[in-house]
Amino acid sequence: MTDLIERLRAICGQPHVLTHDDPASDLSAWEQDWRKRSRGRALAVVRPGSTAEVTAVVQACAATPGVSIVPQGGNTGLVVGSVPDDSGTQVVLSLTRMNAVRAIDPDNLTLTVEAGCVLQNLQDVAEKAGFLFPLSLAAEGSCTIGGNLGTNAGGTQVLRYGNARDLCLGLEVVTAQGEVWNGLTGLRKDNTGYDLRHLMIGSEGTLGIITAATLKLYPLPAAQLTAWAAVPSMEAAVQLLGLAHSRLGPGLTGFEVMGRFALSLVDRHYPHLRVPLWQDSPWCVLLENSDSENESHARQQFEALLEAAMEAGCVSDAVVAENIAQVRALWHIRESIPLAQAEEGLNIKHDISIPVSRIPAFVAETDALLSREIPGVRLVNFGHLGDGNLHYNVQAPEGADGKAFLRDWEDKVNTLVFDQVARFEGSISAEHGVGELKAHKLPTYKDPTALAMMRAVKQALDPQGLLNPRKVLA
Amino acid sequence: MTDLIERLRAICGQPHVLTHDDPASDLSAWEQDWRKRSRGRALAVVRPGSTAEVTAVVQACAATPGVSIVPQGGNTGLVVGSVPDDSGTQVVLSLTRMNAVRAIDPDNLTLTVEAGCVLQNLQDVAEKAGFLFPLSLAAEGSCTIGGNLGTNAGGTQVLRYGNARDLCLGLEVVTAQGEVWNGLTGLRKDNTGYDLRHLMIGSEGTLGIITAATLKLYPLPAAQLTAWAAVPSMEAAVQLLGLAHSRLGPGLTGFEVMGRFALSLVDRHYPHLRVPLWQDSPWCVLLENSDSENESHARQQFEALLEAAMEAGCVSDAVVAENIAQVRALWHIRESIPLAQAEEGLNIKHDISIPVSRIPAFVAETDALLSREIPGVRLVNFGHLGDGNLHYNVQAPEGADGKAFLRDWEDKVNTLVFDQVARFEGSISAEHGVGELKAHKLPTYKDPTALAMMRAVKQALDPQGLLNPRKVLA
Repeated sequence: MTDLIERLRAICGQPHVLTHDDPASDLSAWEQDWRKRSRGRALAVVRPGSTAEVTAVVQACAATPGVSIVPQGGNTGLVVGSVPDDSGTQVVLSLTRMNAVRAIDPDNLTLTVEAGCVLQNLQDVAEKAGFLFPLSLAAEGSCTIGGNLGTNAGGTQVLRYGNARDLCLGLEVVTAQGEVWNGLTGLRKDNTGYDLRHLMIGSEGTLGIITAATLKLYPLPAAQLTAWAAVPSMEAAVQLLGLAHSRLGPGLTGFEVMGRFALSLVDRHYPHLRVPLWQDSPWCVLLENSDSENESHARQQFEALLEAAMEAGCVSDAVVAENIAQVRALWHIRESIPLAQAEEGLNIKHDISIPVSRIPAFVAETDALLSREIPGVRLVNFGHLGDGNLHYNVQAPEGADGKAFLRDWEDKVNTLVFDQVARFEGSISAEHGVGELKAHKLPTYKDPTALAMMRAVKQALDPQGLLNPRKVLA
Repeated sequence: MTDLIERLRAICGQPHVLTHDDPASDLSAWEQDWRKRSRGRALAVVRPGSTAEVTAVVQACAATPGVSIVPQGGNTGLVVGSVPDDSGTQVVLSLTRMNAVRAIDPDNLTLTVEAGCVLQNLQDVAEKAGFLFPLSLAAEGSCTIGGNLGTNAGGTQVLRYGNARDLCLGLEVVTAQGEVWNGLTGLRKDNTGYDLRHLMIGSEGTLGIITAATLKLYPLPAAQLTAWAAVPSMEAAVQLLGLAHSRLGPGLTGFEVMGRFALSLVDRHYPHLRVPLWQDSPWCVLLENSDSENESHARQQFEALLEAAMEAGCVSDAVVAENIAQVRALWHIRESIPLAQAEEGLNIKHDISIPVSRIPAFVAETDALLSREIPGVRLVNFGHLGDGNLHYNVQAPEGADGKAFLRDWEDKVNTLVFDQVARFEGSISAEHGVGELKAHKLPTYKDPTALAMMRAVKQALDPQGLLNPRKVLA
């Protein structure tokens, strides 16, 4: 394996291959996952600067028995998908040095970029050119587009623009054989064979290494406005969603639901954020309207919608943001829920999806089951209701020790929640992926024929098991 | 093989297995392709009535050496993808008896249907429930949703709603092993492994047999209005597209370009259609605005757009439809181009896509190359410019014999056009697929690494070569 390190240094240059042999180098940024659930030990961290270097690295690793590769972007994933195990035989292939914007094509509404570009930078590049790149999520300041595509990231704009896969027209990929698939098409229609792009997207680096992508751009909306509505029940929230779809059409770009306890944590830990309307209602909804005309048109549409919703009884009270500062303030409250929850102590997180129509029954039943099992349990429930995606998190009873709660309850709570998800025909991972964290759950919760096909595809494209072994498929 | 026929009859019932042994049965509807380019000879036509019957048929065929299966929907495909070869060893598996609407879920905006449902019936079912199912194409009265998904159909609403794959959330598939993958999820987010749905969609029945699907519904637009604009050049058409994107946002649901010669054929063969504005301009554009408010709002938006476009010099003259009858009349003109072209005589058809920004140069160069090669050649050029998709068809010179023209020129013209498409980084099949017709072109025009991955996936999922052999991968 010393030979391999020498070869990698010859390929990428001495400064771009980090190992534990150098006592000064601290590899924890690459070896530890974002949520600090797992710390592995890499044989080396390699940072190629070009697609040609990636192919050479893959070929060198493939030729060294016992070595495998863990592709990594911003390493902000939540399911332990981009860090090495503790064997000391895995090479972390970090794409962050490949961060060039290769081309922007305004007439074709496309942007071609390398995998290591940070998401927020791409949002900025698009905006400077007069366009919107709509992928948006909490980690956007450090996650990379390669990781976003590798994990098919979701976020807050999925309702209108889809997941990461829906924003990608073409890919450049280095295969497990160290060959380049040049699929960087800017085409919106291409029916010349199997859709390898969608196969690679969301495969979490187990089928190939995404080195570049061609992304869709959209016209910048003329105005983005938010409203905040108190609703009397989850059923009412679903009814409001239907009304909002029909009244705002594609203008509806955000529909976030937040439970009273989740908002009470924001109120407790960040009182200066002044959460509106949360005390008298079990749920609040944050709506976003992206308008292609202007702000006053967006406001009129919101007012008409909320009036109709109040008449229908699905909204009890509501406010519309008065200005851009209030628009941001309302989003900021929503985004502060995970932070407030962390302030409150450790908790058991779930990123699940359920058909929207079944969410009210799912929440009522699962809340009741958990409360019966764990008296005093507190449920931090919030998420992208428009996508059927809940972050259904379970917090220890008031005053209980968080660590002890996790130790005693995490497995049982996961099983209870995932069994409920299965009963309601949902997904145990809506937007976070599988990684190592959930790989052992798939045999229980994934259709067995689908799992067999996944294994066959993995075997076909990576027969040596070189790319990110034991992630996704345990 | 006689044993097989008996088994198939036991599975599906005597009336649902047709063979040439019965002198009264005419199998041409299943054996001949839509464009009458190919007529095969089936061992049998089998019409199962349920998913269980499909699995039993697949298992029976898999157990009979030398037999393979050709899945078939409405048999309206344009690339010889759903008819048997002339070996007499292929079983046509027709899905048309599986035409139940299994469920509609208004709160989840989903519709779950069997593969044999005719597209137009699904549009009607959606509309009766107050929703839009936006897939729309010429063959909608006879094509089936299973075929639409198998070929990833395009059509006239792709600009806003995407291709068939973008309208599908979940699939039920019978594999080459005769097992059922129950992936009929109604989820908008599901990151639990490889996206087998997108792998199956567009695989033209070579990787599995789609038996049912869960589809996305959208709110019905409050109004749909069309406008017709004469533009001075293809560059101006591209500029108008950009303006329309920015002014109408997601309201822009159609943007069709039509060349003067294409419109002259409609004028010549269907003078009662009264084509507007075609004589003084090289290109006309049909725009569609789908408005979530009302018709007068849609009209105001169109008028503002066209005024801005005239000021910018990219539109020379324009009309906005006055009423729903005119909306339909304008679309009818666009849809009459292929018919008028057929009236004019045989021609060489291409269904290509190019990045929108490069279309003006592609058309200018390719027109010039063809005119130099074939003096007097006439180009019927029209298509979905908003998607970068042209139907770039080559008609014999005035007065020339169509059959002789095809015989002498088809191969040469295809090569010339496809080479140009490759130079401009386009696709030789934008929406029609590969089938048998273009399978032998892929080795020349597809990225070799992509083609190798396609072969590996086919081998992994259908090692016996049971499903639609020699389609897509020759």
